[in-house]
Amino acid sequence: MSDHVRQTEPFRWEGIEVRPYRQEGTHFSGITRQVLFEGGDGLACELRYFEIAPGGWSSLERHHHAHAVMVVRGRGRVLIGDRIVDAGMHDLVRVPSLTWHQFQAGADAPLGFLCMVDCERDVPERPDAAVVAELRRDPAIAAFVRV
Amino acid sequence: MSDHVRQTEPFRWEGIEVRPYRQEGTHFSGITRQVLFEGGDGLACELRYFEIAPGGWSSLERHHHAHAVMVVRGRGRVLIGDRIVDAGMHDLVRVPSLTWHQFQAGADAPLGFLCMVDCERDVPERPDAAVVAELRRDPAIAAFVRV
Repeated sequence: MSDHVRQTEPFRWEGIEVRPYRQEGTHFSGITRQVLFEGGDGLACELRYFEIAPGGWSSLERHHHAHAVMVVRGRGRVLIGDRIVDAGMHDLVRVPSLTWHQFQAGADAPLGFLCMVDCERDVPERPDAAVVAELRRDPAIAAFVRV
Repeated sequence: MSDHVRQTEPFRWEGIEVRPYRQEGTHFSGITRQVLFEGGDGLACELRYFEIAPGGWSSLERHHHAHAVMVVRGRGRVLIGDRIVDAGMHDLVRVPSLTWHQFQAGADAPLGFLCMVDCERDVPERPDAAVVAELRRDPAIAAFVRV
């Protein structure tokens, strides 16, 4: 990438492709991904911008690598382990290693966030039926999670 | 830090200290530093928020590690090697390895930006008189740099 990349319209940048979040699936909805900074050449992390449309959600998953997230548009809710937090503008969310997590936009607002991750990272694990059943023992989480 | 840190007022976060940018010196002015995400535990980088007051500037320096910067408040100008770029809201700036750089706020606007860096990084090098003289051979850079 160039050393200077302009925002051309809100949350769109020159030369940065708006990509699908993941390959096909029904375990996520209404979410795009843009890689703002690739790693390498003196950077051990990447910085991505994700945007979840109103009513959408990211995959419920966990992995060894951590996420460092900052909300920069709209608001939403995030499952981090055994709790659900309301995340508003510029709030910071850290998803620790091996912690089940899911991001959801509000019903009437998008959720746009920056996410910093290590370049070298493991593949996310998705929950099996037993894990989902265990998570759903908490009524608040049962009402929240989409799988 | 907690897994969820709220923004309490614009560009201030609960429990995150507003620190001096550097120790005493005359090679920078009007700049604060907040560490939003520390590294470790699955993160090889840190994410910091710097804010330069109107008329202020960061240290002119270079180092082996890279910077990945996103403007999130106000606007300013950035020296990256041999060019000066105008950086506005949400613009991205990558400072490559061993590249002289300096951030300056506008005369009447602050410049607030996120900066991602490797946790393990080298100490910045400041320019000696010969380097400054070389940089100043370009009239635009001569008018820009503060040392």
